[in-house]
Amino acid sequence: MDLATLASGLDTVWVVLTAAMILLMEGGFALLEAGFVRQKNAVSIIMKVFVDITFGALIFYFFGFAIMYGKDLSGLIGTSGFFLGGDLSHIDLTISHETYWLFQCAFVIAVISIVSGAVAERINFHAYILFTIAMTGLIYPIAGHWVWSIGGWLGGLGMIDFAGSAVIHALGGFAALAAAVIIGPRIGKFTEDGTANIVPPSNLPLASVGAFILWFGWFGFNSGSTLSATNGSIGHIALTTMLAASAGGATCILFTMLRYRKSDPPMVINGSLAGLVGITAGCAFVSSGAAILIGAVCGIAMVFATEYLESKKIDDPVGAFAVHGVSGSIGTLAVGLFAKPELIEGLGQGYTGLFYGGGFQLLGVQALGLAIIIVWGFATTWVVFKLIRLVVPVRVSRDEELVGLDVGIHGVPAYSQDTDFIELDQLKR
Amino acid sequence: MDLATLASGLDTVWVVLTAAMILLMEGGFALLEAGFVRQKNAVSIIMKVFVDITFGALIFYFFGFAIMYGKDLSGLIGTSGFFLGGDLSHIDLTISHETYWLFQCAFVIAVISIVSGAVAERINFHAYILFTIAMTGLIYPIAGHWVWSIGGWLGGLGMIDFAGSAVIHALGGFAALAAAVIIGPRIGKFTEDGTANIVPPSNLPLASVGAFILWFGWFGFNSGSTLSATNGSIGHIALTTMLAASAGGATCILFTMLRYRKSDPPMVINGSLAGLVGITAGCAFVSSGAAILIGAVCGIAMVFATEYLESKKIDDPVGAFAVHGVSGSIGTLAVGLFAKPELIEGLGQGYTGLFYGGGFQLLGVQALGLAIIIVWGFATTWVVFKLIRLVVPVRVSRDEELVGLDVGIHGVPAYSQDTDFIELDQLKR
Amino acid sequence: MDLATLASGLDTVWVVLTAAMILLMEGGFALLEAGFVRQKNAVSIIMKVFVDITFGALIFYFFGFAIMYGKDLSGLIGTSGFFLGGDLSHIDLTISHETYWLFQCAFVIAVISIVSGAVAERINFHAYILFTIAMTGLIYPIAGHWVWSIGGWLGGLGMIDFAGSAVIHALGGFAALAAAVIIGPRIGKFTEDGTANIVPPSNLPLASVGAFILWFGWFGFNSGSTLSATNGSIGHIALTTMLAASAGGATCILFTMLRYRKSDPPMVINGSLAGLVGITAGCAFVSSGAAILIGAVCGIAMVFATEYLESKKIDDPVGAFAVHGVSGSIGTLAVGLFAKPELIEGLGQGYTGLFYGGGFQLLGVQALGLAIIIVWGFATTWVVFKLIRLVVPVRVSRDEELVGLDVGIHGVPAYSQDTDFIELDQLKR
Repeated sequence: MDLATLASGLDTVWVVLTAAMILLMEGGFALLEAGFVRQKNAVSIIMKVFVDITFGALIFYFFGFAIMYGKDLSGLIGTSGFFLGGDLSHIDLTISHETYWLFQCAFVIAVISIVSGAVAERINFHAYILFTIAMTGLIYPIAGHWVWSIGGWLGGLGMIDFAGSAVIHALGGFAALAAAVIIGPRIGKFTEDGTANIVPPSNLPLASVGAFILWFGWFGFNSGSTLSATNGSIGHIALTTMLAASAGGATCILFTMLRYRKSDPPMVINGSLAGLVGITAGCAFVSSGAAILIGAVCGIAMVFATEYLESKKIDDPVGAFAVHGVSGSIGTLAVGLFAKPELIEGLGQGYTGLFYGGGFQLLGVQALGLAIIIVWGFATTWVVFKLIRLVVPVRVSRDEELVGLDVGIHGVPAYSQDTDFIELDQLKR
Repeated sequence: MDLATLASGLDTVWVVLTAAMILLMEGGFALLEAGFVRQKNAVSIIMKVFVDITFGALIFYFFGFAIMYGKDLSGLIGTSGFFLGGDLSHIDLTISHETYWLFQCAFVIAVISIVSGAVAERINFHAYILFTIAMTGLIYPIAGHWVWSIGGWLGGLGMIDFAGSAVIHALGGFAALAAAVIIGPRIGKFTEDGTANIVPPSNLPLASVGAFILWFGWFGFNSGSTLSATNGSIGHIALTTMLAASAGGATCILFTMLRYRKSDPPMVINGSLAGLVGITAGCAFVSSGAAILIGAVCGIAMVFATEYLESKKIDDPVGAFAVHGVSGSIGTLAVGLFAKPELIEGLGQGYTGLFYGGGFQLLGVQALGLAIIIVWGFATTWVVFKLIRLVVPVRVSRDEELVGLDVGIHGVPAYSQDTDFIELDQLKR
Repeated sequence: MDLATLASGLDTVWVVLTAAMILLMEGGFALLEAGFVRQKNAVSIIMKVFVDITFGALIFYFFGFAIMYGKDLSGLIGTSGFFLGGDLSHIDLTISHETYWLFQCAFVIAVISIVSGAVAERINFHAYILFTIAMTGLIYPIAGHWVWSIGGWLGGLGMIDFAGSAVIHALGGFAALAAAVIIGPRIGKFTEDGTANIVPPSNLPLASVGAFILWFGWFGFNSGSTLSATNGSIGHIALTTMLAASAGGATCILFTMLRYRKSDPPMVINGSLAGLVGITAGCAFVSSGAAILIGAVCGIAMVFATEYLESKKIDDPVGAFAVHGVSGSIGTLAVGLFAKPELIEGLGQGYTGLFYGGGFQLLGVQALGLAIIIVWGFATTWVVFKLIRLVVPVRVSRDEELVGLDVGIHGVPAYSQDTDFIELDQLKR
């Protein structure tokens, strides 16, 4: 046993354990979304998460990973690593390529899960499978290549996105927005005179479990992104992650108390998540004070964004855009303001935020990168749904939507009382 | 601080953390099963899981561990290590015997939890406690000794079962089958003319939480079975685990869509689990392509096994046999086909699968070992239940079954609406 | 890469991962409590847990940590480390102060969560926020300083409380008792003739998830308290933790079967938790046999304590006092009986329990420390609630309590059936 073997073993278990934590976040997404939607669609949203994981992992193994992290071609796309084969010698880590793949796989599944919430209660299941393939195989891998891969052009410009406020959350959030717009609102969500109706979440305790699981997984998400257990930033990352989430949640507790005269549970849940999303880009590079500020701003912005979307008659049942799109954007830009020289030593001069004397250089790069990514996420999603529409409908039938997707599409309700047994023939065609 | 201390510390935290993940799988089993059964029996199944953990851990501490991992006698049984005392010098690991015990304890609890699902909604609680003692103290430890203990005769023949497709899942699955047969179907499950009735799961979102938690825990189950953080296979194990589970789930999404014209949520949940069960034996020794194939085959086999059991009028409410018995068997045999020489270097010549030029040797050993274990699991369970029947009924009364075990046996329903307070006297005898 | 860097990295990931596990326990507390209370108050208890985490983390960052672990003043209070700044050179660990903070932050949130259960279904939300600030910023940090901080007077006397049976659980439990007394019982809990009514838990499967998550987190709680991955006690701690929990649960399964003629699910859940609470002080210092005994005693004591509180007309809806106050006290005292010399080598002579020839010295210190802490927890909580009452009511209105806090205070029910959309105007003021 030598030191290098030990170090590699330590890094491996660190990455495998944090990857497992991130994969558990899928359970978190499933419950959050199942709790937020109506009872009649609770299973259908969970089935979408199963599509995210199962199809997402396979597609990312087949070609998504290669496109994202394969040998770079012109800063735009990866070209090796299909089925984890071929030349991946440029990925030179203390962990194996297989371990690295697992961690990145957990990330791609998170992206697609963001979209699943925005199209809840009305998307056609076949269309969702096709979109999942496009997102996990092309849309996200290409954008991710630009920022995170060796040779990617946005990373080359100096864009900082430590664990993915932009690449994961802003991308996913704007894709969610495009999908919500193109699919249209749920029947009955908006009245003829333009006012919005709201539907109380079907199961808030379940949604809360989801949020707690997501919070737990986020420590894996952010701290694990070091990919090395001896990275000196791990403690700082965990601290800023905790503080931003708390600030997002606490702010929403107080702010909704002022604004609605009650502390609004769904907003508090989403406020904590908004804080987590917001700190994801800068968790290693901003101070703990800045983390609190970022979390608080994201929490409040999430409330306004939710209200704004309603006023624009865009129906995003679980607030995917308000949480991920908006906070992801804020977090990405915040790095341009708050990146602190002593936290990013080794990265070099250009990586100092505006408030620490770095001028507008980093902020400009962050803004450019963010703009590129959200336009990419929105536009490709739009195009892909247009293409899918040529093959299958993107929306369920009116009858299926009214009866609910659980029984309408999957043939089984989420919750059943103690009824008698059902004759099998009744359920079979 | 020297290198050896550090290595031992690393291995210790690796094993403790993965053991904790496996123990969390009990929560997963509890929810999966509580969500799959009828509402009136949701608490009773959770109580069985509490029996699994609490009695299982104590019995395994008292004597199960000694019988399984104690000093070998004739390849058949362990003879030291009662209360973790006595001579355990043959277990020579970088981790302490106490740490090793914890990990193995998490395994034994998983085995008994497999059975709890098959006897759901009708087993007598006292009988279940007695069976738990037999399973965790004798049935599993003896079989486990044969395969995994130093000196065990099946391991000596060259049988490979990395993390327990045979020892845990096939054993548990066939024990579940025996228990389901001996206890008989739930009242009303089969009509007089022989057709099966089905009952919709009471709480699918809860069952899904269970599945996600199980999936998470499985990374601990398989990767942790290295027992050492510097084992070079950890990344590969995590990869094959992820791919097989995804293949099992994705296959069931597509296959049930074809077969039933709807993507069947319970089948998709069980399909993912089937993939996980199937890869458990070979996770370290088969390629990622083989992992995908194994997962896919297990997913489809699970669907057919579920239908077959129904046609035979055997009532297994949560599909324990179809998931664990069938996929565990497939996974064990698959090692004989797919074990890849370069992945098992150090193990020696005989460990090459049929498809890599190893001939039928390994496949034969796997088939023999599997046959022994499933016969052992089925037969001993049968005998133990016959013995238990001499002491207590193995089945609840007809009235208790009709009213549900929650109120009938445990005096409290799983879910209560906002009723008024209940006078304590009404509940006390 | 040198050995010291590697060791520090290993310790860091160990502490960050176990801290994340402890923070996930908040999800456990939320579900346990939401499942135990009536449906109409399920969201309100979860909102309290969000207050615990979000306000707790921020307050502990602002000043709680400084008061607890800052430079000691007269053995009574810490004086540096506000906002994690200032002189913290006396905290000399292999992990960074930020990592250390995260772990301690997870602890403080656990304390306040204990109280949230006892005041469920009737506390005013504003009052709860104020109490959270007092508990996480002053009450717990001061008591914790006495026992755990360098220079703390109780620690100086030789008090042993490895992971907090006294500092976390007894303190939290007696604070919960004070709060329950001062707020008074729920409307209808006790009849005019003095008998107690009981209310069945609204969602036992959810409460069970909570218990399993808590059990999982406890491995982080106890093992992680080593703060170092190379601490030789980790395996022993995990073993005693598992055995005590199992003993607590198994004992309650059997004991309630005898006492109530049914295995009482809520009691079994709380019995397992009681075992966990009880072993928390001595997990590193008592034998596995003693761990089983401690767990069993705590399980039974919890049943009697629950009944006793009812007979005294004190209303503690989730059994916070019976689980945490009573078992925490038993566990603290048990160290004085069972502390085993060879397990505490290095700590010195005075640390041997009565049963191993240490005489009454350690037992006396444990009893003194416990008495101080429970009086402190009870008295300060009493005073703080009296002070809060000067500013806001500590209890909701009769109407709000009858309609339930979810709709009454937070404007949204926990569970909603598939109703039509609700006009937004109906919900806005």
